[in-house]
Amino acid sequence: MEKVINDLVGYDNLKIIQVNEYFNFSLDSVLLANFVNLNDKINKILDLGTGNAPIPLILSTKTNKKIIGVELQKEIYNLAVESVKINKLENQIEILNVDIKELLSHFKVESFDLILSNPPYFKKINTSILNDNEVKTNARHETLINLEDIISISSKLLVNKGIFALIHRTERLAEIIETLKKYHLEPKKIRFVFPKEGSESNLVLIEAKKNSNPGVKVLAPLIVHDENSNYTKEVLKMFKRGD
Amino acid sequence: MEKVINDLVGYDNLKIIQVNEYFNFSLDSVLLANFVNLNDKINKILDLGTGNAPIPLILSTKTNKKIIGVELQKEIYNLAVESVKINKLENQIEILNVDIKELLSHFKVESFDLILSNPPYFKKINTSILNDNEVKTNARHETLINLEDIISISSKLLVNKGIFALIHRTERLAEIIETLKKYHLEPKKIRFVFPKEGSESNLVLIEAKKNSNPGVKVLAPLIVHDENSNYTKEVLKMFKRGD
Repeated sequence: MEKVINDLVGYDNLKIIQVNEYFNFSLDSVLLANFVNLNDKINKILDLGTGNAPIPLILSTKTNKKIIGVELQKEIYNLAVESVKINKLENQIEILNVDIKELLSHFKVESFDLILSNPPYFKKINTSILNDNEVKTNARHETLINLEDIISISSKLLVNKGIFALIHRTERLAEIIETLKKYHLEPKKIRFVFPKEGSESNLVLIEAKKNSNPGVKVLAPLIVHDENSNYTKEVLKMFKRGD
Repeated sequence: MEKVINDLVGYDNLKIIQVNEYFNFSLDSVLLANFVNLNDKINKILDLGTGNAPIPLILSTKTNKKIIGVELQKEIYNLAVESVKINKLENQIEILNVDIKELLSHFKVESFDLILSNPPYFKKINTSILNDNEVKTNARHETLINLEDIISISSKLLVNKGIFALIHRTERLAEIIETLKKYHLEPKKIRFVFPKEGSESNLVLIEAKKNSNPGVKVLAPLIVHDENSNYTKEVLKMFKRGD
């Protein structure tokens, strides 16, 4: 198992520890970290399924507030801890090696202002397509936790009017919205991600507010690649935020 | 009250009867009529809140199957009947002057393959913003019928795997999806409409399938106006379908 210290692409001052055979941070985390609005009311931030901590690392370039990342898989948790250390961010970012489903024994209800998640995307239905690398499988499939678990626990941990921010596969949009509403998280801001112009959306970014009035904004589409398969200006700009 | 015979814009062979002071068909109907897929399985079509019948008229250029339009407001119903007559489409299009909420005493359950609706967009909450023209008010606000009524009745009237197609305000997306799922209409295809590039979406087109598996496609965005405030090529093309 070879650990590699990479630049957190584009964030010149940040490093991230990766293990190529089973865990690399993805563009999705960058998109989510750039989607959320950080304002003065947000004092305590939680990232569920933090992986090797790309979201806490990126958010640390935008806020000085406390950020807690939760990662159940020990191997990935270790990468996250090392990533935080190598960036000397131990005072701002704390990584917990606990099961999200057990979080209510670690924190009181209503103790976070913002909860983010880039969760496993795929249902646990067709075992034949499960990745044979278990760590990778658990990061991509709902083997250890599913969407409803994440949403129900987030709803409990958020303060009144707190924000839940999610990136997920567009295909699951209807289920996501139904489940958010079931747990009193009202979708307020949605942005669809398209791999390129003219294609169908593959990913969706959603911000929901606890106990809010209904009414959602759908922002202009976010196109990832241009006609030459290069990142679009907007995506490149996200990678420059840390400068 | 001055009735005007207009071309159904772009559809050279079609005329539509309008009364400018209280009812003109809108671009929204054109968008919805162009959004739905008409295939061989679709034999019986229903348009709920048909207005002066723009959707049945446009669909008649694409299919020979029976189309029924329902319009409760007598004044508008009369315009729809005249519009059908002037185009000599009485054999294909039937307009009913009944309350959508009473439709189950007119039709058996599971009797339509496709149901469309361009319903009143606004909630009946703030009476101060209600239009003082009653006919117009009823067409724009949920005074006579609301979204849940339309969805629940559509679900009953659709055959198994039948299609419900809706245009509505994007702002109400979460409520729309939650209500569709409540009545076993699974969102399968969504397209967001944007007034121009870079702006937020104002309208959303949704196709839902009765008793379908979950899984939704979000199509490439539909941009209505270009930078010079002219219709985009894609919208102009819709207006050319009738040629």
